Amino acid sequence: MFMSKKAKGSRAERELFHKLWLHFGPCVRAAGSGSTTKPAPDLITSDGSRVIAIECKSVKGTKKYFEHEEIEQLVSFATGFGAEPWIAVRFDNKGWYFLEATNLSQSKGKSLLVSFELAQKNGKKFEEFLGMYQQQRLV
Amino acid sequence: MFMSKKAKGSRAERELFHKLWLHFGPCVRAAGSGSTTKPAPDLITSDGSRVIAIECKSVKGTKKYFEHEEIEQLVSFATGFGAEPWIAVRFDNKGWYFLEATNLSQSKGKSLLVSFELAQKNGKKFEEFLGMYQQQRLV
Repeated sequence: MFMSKKAKGSRAERELFHKLWLHFGPCVRAAGSGSTTKPAPDLITSDGSRVIAIECKSVKGTKKYFEHEEIEQLVSFATGFGAEPWIAVRFDNKGWYFLEATNLSQSKGKSLLVSFELAQKNGKKFEEFLGMYQQQRLV
Repeated sequence: MFMSKKAKGSRAERELFHKLWLHFGPCVRAAGSGSTTKPAPDLITSDGSRVIAIECKSVKGTKKYFEHEEIEQLVSFATGFGAEPWIAVRFDNKGWYFLEATNLSQSKGKSLLVSFELAQKNGKKFEEFLGMYQQQRLV
């Protein structure tokens, strides 16, 4: 069935929302960015000690581009809020990868490529992201 | 001009959202409660140390009723999130009053009346709520 990019992004966001409620703690989806000029992450969640602000994306292939401004707004919001800023990318059939936005924001160029290769190298899977286990790296 | 209760509530919520951004810290409006079965406060805000979950209402007269379940869900959400649960009521021409939801949830009866009298007695004005000053009480 055809699904628009927007619907797909929204479905991925809801999926992550429910995973966080189940395995981490209370989670809030921010009201649509169209309703305000203030920056907002897609999700904000906390287990009572770690507060995490997340910008999430879903991608069919192996490449996802982010605008630098998007990352900078996430980092700025999170800094003021006292939250950790994270990017979550869901690659089709490969699941979620989490990358620290503060590291990404230092990269050069107009937009930022998060490839599946980069996600595997520098990102964390869901369980590792939440500290449920430390992933073994075969480097 | 006629304004529906829903539009009025939404406008009050946006007003408080902007006041918090201006005088406290980053603030998020939660996506419509219709989109999920999970509890969510109307607003969640933090200055980097205090995290505050707010359920807000606007009222034309001097009486506002809350369902106990609404208060309990706010308290439950905030407990898991590590946030302070607050009720914010905006009385027309009298401004915002903030009441600690943990105190309210102990009251008896099916629904809970927050009158202007109660708000004046037990509530805090915006500046006091944010610790900008301690209100002098003439008791």
